[in-house]
Amino acid sequence: MTSGKVYLVGAGPGDPELMTLKARRVTDSADLVLHDSLVGSGVVEAIPDGVRTENVGKDPHGDRTPQEEINRRMVEAARRGEVVTRLKCGDPNVFGRGGEEAEVLASHGVEFEVVPGVTSAVAAPGVEGIPPTHRDHASSLTVVTGHEDPTKDESALDWDALASNVEAGGTLVILMGVRRLPDNVAALRRNGVPSDTPAAMVERATLGDSAAVTAPLDGIVGEARAAEIETPAVTVVGDTVGVRDEVVGSIAASGVSEVVRDSDGEPRTQEVVSGD
Amino acid sequence: MTSGKVYLVGAGPGDPELMTLKARRVTDSADLVLHDSLVGSGVVEAIPDGVRTENVGKDPHGDRTPQEEINRRMVEAARRGEVVTRLKCGDPNVFGRGGEEAEVLASHGVEFEVVPGVTSAVAAPGVEGIPPTHRDHASSLTVVTGHEDPTKDESALDWDALASNVEAGGTLVILMGVRRLPDNVAALRRNGVPSDTPAAMVERATLGDSAAVTAPLDGIVGEARAAEIETPAVTVVGDTVGVRDEVVGSIAASGVSEVVRDSDGEPRTQEVVSGD
Repeated sequence: MTSGKVYLVGAGPGDPELMTLKARRVTDSADLVLHDSLVGSGVVEAIPDGVRTENVGKDPHGDRTPQEEINRRMVEAARRGEVVTRLKCGDPNVFGRGGEEAEVLASHGVEFEVVPGVTSAVAAPGVEGIPPTHRDHASSLTVVTGHEDPTKDESALDWDALASNVEAGGTLVILMGVRRLPDNVAALRRNGVPSDTPAAMVERATLGDSAAVTAPLDGIVGEARAAEIETPAVTVVGDTVGVRDEVVGSIAASGVSEVVRDSDGEPRTQEVVSGD
Repeated sequence: MTSGKVYLVGAGPGDPELMTLKARRVTDSADLVLHDSLVGSGVVEAIPDGVRTENVGKDPHGDRTPQEEINRRMVEAARRGEVVTRLKCGDPNVFGRGGEEAEVLASHGVEFEVVPGVTSAVAAPGVEGIPPTHRDHASSLTVVTGHEDPTKDESALDWDALASNVEAGGTLVILMGVRRLPDNVAALRRNGVPSDTPAAMVERATLGDSAAVTAPLDGIVGEARAAEIETPAVTVVGDTVGVRDEVVGSIAASGVSEVVRDSDGEPRTQEVVSGD
């Protein structure tokens, strides 16, 4: 084992206040933070000055840092005895490559710890009044990503099984599915999901400037286009989307929050703009 | 609208440090906290003395507080102008009745806000080295509960669709499924999931005294019994369970953490027992 250690950390869905206390602590006390581009800017800005922080989502030319390079940096830092926080949006293990990075670390004898985070798959619908599960409307929740590994066969997602789950009363959440929305809707329809199944898209949830649209499945592509829904956004399909119509009038506008530091350097959070 | 407000808050999987900064803030600044029994004791103990706190998971006789009674208390407090935090384990909308409570609040003109939390469905496997999704092993994650609504028909869960997802390379996580484990395994087998599909059970994840066992699907009932796995625990079925074997030697023992308050009453967290 190396003397260093790597924390594989979820930063949550974007709002810096939706990071866990532990994620905040291990980020702020790390020697090195390697974060993805989609981690909320408020999360990164709150990191104390003394912590070396690198965006490994994009290099200076705007290209994505190769996974092998991220792996190399983590392993080398741990071998130098450093404590590294590898900071990802949402949860590190929900389409975040946390498992792959854990395998690399283990193969190099580097100790690691997973610090789970709030996944957008649950948070984005939830804050907009769409409960991912509901006793009357949704007995299961299935999460997939619209960004399938391009090296995989196109049929990596079994749309027949996914459609069966929706028909049986499950909720389907598709992460990062803006570009492929028409294909995904067509795949569900082709596999038997009724055209009037409620659907929604939620863009930039918890970031203070979110947008949400709902429509029957056969109208969601048009609604999303009309509302100019852009990445990052999640798609939700299932009866539970209908709950939003019942409750939307009572949803309190969420304030935008930030992390500030007191005179001791301890983090505390506050709402910058109250939603009330 | 009433002058009060209700926060529907996820406390995370148990470790008080896996609560979000926002969940901590709105809990500590509430007039009234209504929490479930399964919310981690460290989460509740850290609530400042001035906040009225009630366990609505069980009444003094050990019975569960009826949902109607919880609803009534939330609505009445909000009508008095109070700020209420309704604190649930995990995420309020993942088998937490958050959606039902939102509907009740909306029907009474009470403003509410959802504060999402870290769900055990993702956290419990993750901290034990089982990534719920993985590019090579799991292209989808499906979450169900072993505690189905007893008023529902037995067939509320479509085990054929759930089994198809597992066969197509998805991960299935069953929350609170200890008692029904033999039934659930039999249902998956009956619907075509191979007997050698990797499976795991994780008990009391993130609470400092967790236990995890893995076995092929046809051996998991026996392994769980031999290890005396008890509630609360999650069951995981899918190829991604195999990742644990690769990485388990590098998983850092997680310290037990607690929330303490500085002289200003601000919360900060620390590890009580270091895992290193």
